[in-house]
Amino acid sequence: MSNPRHLAILKSLATKSDSKIVFLVMDGIGGIRTTTHGTTELEAASTPNLDRLAQRASLGRIIPALRGMTVGSGPGHLALFGYDPVAEENEIGRGVLEAVGVDYALKPHEVAARGNFATLDAAGLISDRRAGRIGSDEGTRVCAKMQAAVAEPIDGVSVKVLPVKEYRFCVVFDGPDLEGAFLDTDPQVTGKAPLPVRPSVEGPHTERTRKVIEAAIAKMSAAIKDEPKANGFSLRGFAKDPGIETLQQRWGMRCGAIATHPLYRGVARLVGMDILKTGTEIADEFETLKQHWNEYDFFFLHVKKTDSYGEDGNRRGKISIIEETDRHLAWLGEKLNDVIVVTGDHCTPPPMRGHSFHPVPTMIAAKTSDVGGNLRFCERTCVTGSLGLFPSMELMQLALGHAGKLQKFGA
Amino acid sequence: MSNPRHLAILKSLATKSDSKIVFLVMDGIGGIRTTTHGTTELEAASTPNLDRLAQRASLGRIIPALRGMTVGSGPGHLALFGYDPVAEENEIGRGVLEAVGVDYALKPHEVAARGNFATLDAAGLISDRRAGRIGSDEGTRVCAKMQAAVAEPIDGVSVKVLPVKEYRFCVVFDGPDLEGAFLDTDPQVTGKAPLPVRPSVEGPHTERTRKVIEAAIAKMSAAIKDEPKANGFSLRGFAKDPGIETLQQRWGMRCGAIATHPLYRGVARLVGMDILKTGTEIADEFETLKQHWNEYDFFFLHVKKTDSYGEDGNRRGKISIIEETDRHLAWLGEKLNDVIVVTGDHCTPPPMRGHSFHPVPTMIAAKTSDVGGNLRFCERTCVTGSLGLFPSMELMQLALGHAGKLQKFGA
Repeated sequence: MSNPRHLAILKSLATKSDSKIVFLVMDGIGGIRTTTHGTTELEAASTPNLDRLAQRASLGRIIPALRGMTVGSGPGHLALFGYDPVAEENEIGRGVLEAVGVDYALKPHEVAARGNFATLDAAGLISDRRAGRIGSDEGTRVCAKMQAAVAEPIDGVSVKVLPVKEYRFCVVFDGPDLEGAFLDTDPQVTGKAPLPVRPSVEGPHTERTRKVIEAAIAKMSAAIKDEPKANGFSLRGFAKDPGIETLQQRWGMRCGAIATHPLYRGVARLVGMDILKTGTEIADEFETLKQHWNEYDFFFLHVKKTDSYGEDGNRRGKISIIEETDRHLAWLGEKLNDVIVVTGDHCTPPPMRGHSFHPVPTMIAAKTSDVGGNLRFCERTCVTGSLGLFPSMELMQLALGHAGKLQKFGA
Repeated sequence: MSNPRHLAILKSLATKSDSKIVFLVMDGIGGIRTTTHGTTELEAASTPNLDRLAQRASLGRIIPALRGMTVGSGPGHLALFGYDPVAEENEIGRGVLEAVGVDYALKPHEVAARGNFATLDAAGLISDRRAGRIGSDEGTRVCAKMQAAVAEPIDGVSVKVLPVKEYRFCVVFDGPDLEGAFLDTDPQVTGKAPLPVRPSVEGPHTERTRKVIEAAIAKMSAAIKDEPKANGFSLRGFAKDPGIETLQQRWGMRCGAIATHPLYRGVARLVGMDILKTGTEIADEFETLKQHWNEYDFFFLHVKKTDSYGEDGNRRGKISIIEETDRHLAWLGEKLNDVIVVTGDHCTPPPMRGHSFHPVPTMIAAKTSDVGGNLRFCERTCVTGSLGLFPSMELMQLALGHAGKLQKFGA
């Protein structure tokens, strides 16, 4: 939803209904048919429960952002939740994504940046921008040394060092009146020293914030200078929470998110969802859904591994995750009074070993669906489905419509 | 691509890839099925190579400009090249189209206008707005008399008179500080004299430019006053090159254009393509493509006669051109690593004897295509194709996506 007037009108029409809405997001779900494989993973999988759902659903396809554009998980999910993923006001800085991606509940006044450990030579120049790709254990250990060095607040600003993975970490600055607009300190090439902190946009508190960040960098750098590999670092993607209007504010829905991976919990948190504690398996996620069923109007349940196997080019693996998800769908599939949406944030075709720009197969199963005689949920049936081909960011309003959560416009 | 922010984001994602992109534009390719002919020309033609391409392609249909709107070749091609054909900044004045349409390489500072010969009566009033539809030979001869009359620059501005066809010609003014915004001198009706030159928008050099144009008109008029038919003229569509951002600037692609007719070369030149010398036949065009294959990232190959026969209402003729094009497609069809787009600038259904507003059948054959089990390339298969129905101006970005020439947006 990118047109402010359209959004305002839709919000004015928002109303309560007895139907819950569930977004089952299978990451990277869509695939492509090639001359080698005439079926996609969804087509090749045995999916009795998805197919039963399709038989009472409307089918279609969604375009994550712009035609031909491949999106990452951040924009892909923002769009699913009804936000224009390419609008400036919905831009989520990389630092913010990294922080929420390790389950850090970033507060609106905090500034976050991604960190990369690097190896510096005797002259202080970067000789390896990834510090020899150190492992997560070593990264966590070095992060602890940096955290100890900034245990005391700097000019009233406390600094948190969060290990992410391998040579990656995240730094959060927590204090009053902080600006978030600074350029990367990563020179992008070896043979140069990390850059000083420079503002990208000047604000009233830029200079003070810059000094705090520089002071923190100096302390953290000193603490790790004798490390064999991770004896330096650069910071990138400085940003604050963009302060996106929440789903609760927009539609008056209580929203719960279930995801095994922190990045997806993070994006859900940024749009105001409660994060529901769950386990590491798809089974755990569906169990969490059952447990919290009565507490929320909207659920986002994220299945990660369809994407992971797609990225690996593992067609069989992706099929197996689709089938595993399908097995857990029986209970949800019988919620005839509710709106069950099955979709993805983007396609991840195994032959492409990465995200792609292709439209994402999508279905909406509801009492109000236009059931078109579909026998299966797959690319083939979605291409000719009654929902047609439309932007992902309009899926939420369509789900609200199916759930009776939008009143009539005009007499 | 009409949203400036969207375009800026896409441009920021542009990257190189090994895949070339070829736009094979069959002018007016699409047709309609009627109660008389249950098949379109594409459907009735025997097209083994197009069909083989379709079997490894994604199919769909494109809308040249606005739904229900019929476009000319200028806007139709601009849209194919990724420019919003109805945006003010992409408006190509008729004078400019006329100049580039006779292969004149219009420079940014020059002003061009279309000319129509007219017959004036003894009182200097127009009695025939097309000068008795004189032939091209006579038009060329009279143009030469006018050119001789303005052989000397007027106030530093040199004037070029370019014959176009029959009673049509083009005038180009070449000098420093010229304004291009003037109203037509054509009174649109007989019984009136050609109008004086009046500005449509005032600029710093309007008055001087106006005087130069008036002086040129006076000299050219005097030179032909004794002609039996073409003893006068009017000028229309004064304009300068709109200075459209080139494809090279947008996407970093080296672009080559192959077309037998000057208008199409002209539009291609306005968006920055190199014009490749070719012959008059379709065979020549494909030969030119082969010769220059290694020199460019993007090719535009234009087939004219599908449109010409459509305009004539000649169904058999249009079918024969489709079949002729198909025969030359074998070599291109085997470029499995590249992106082959087959489309048109608009439809020209023979029963309508003119351009039409119908969506244009389109296919994208690439390694990244979602091959949907299509057996043929025609209206029937394109209606249900996986690309769906979308604006022509989004075809370029979709082709870039298929070619791996757009990086992922966001993490």
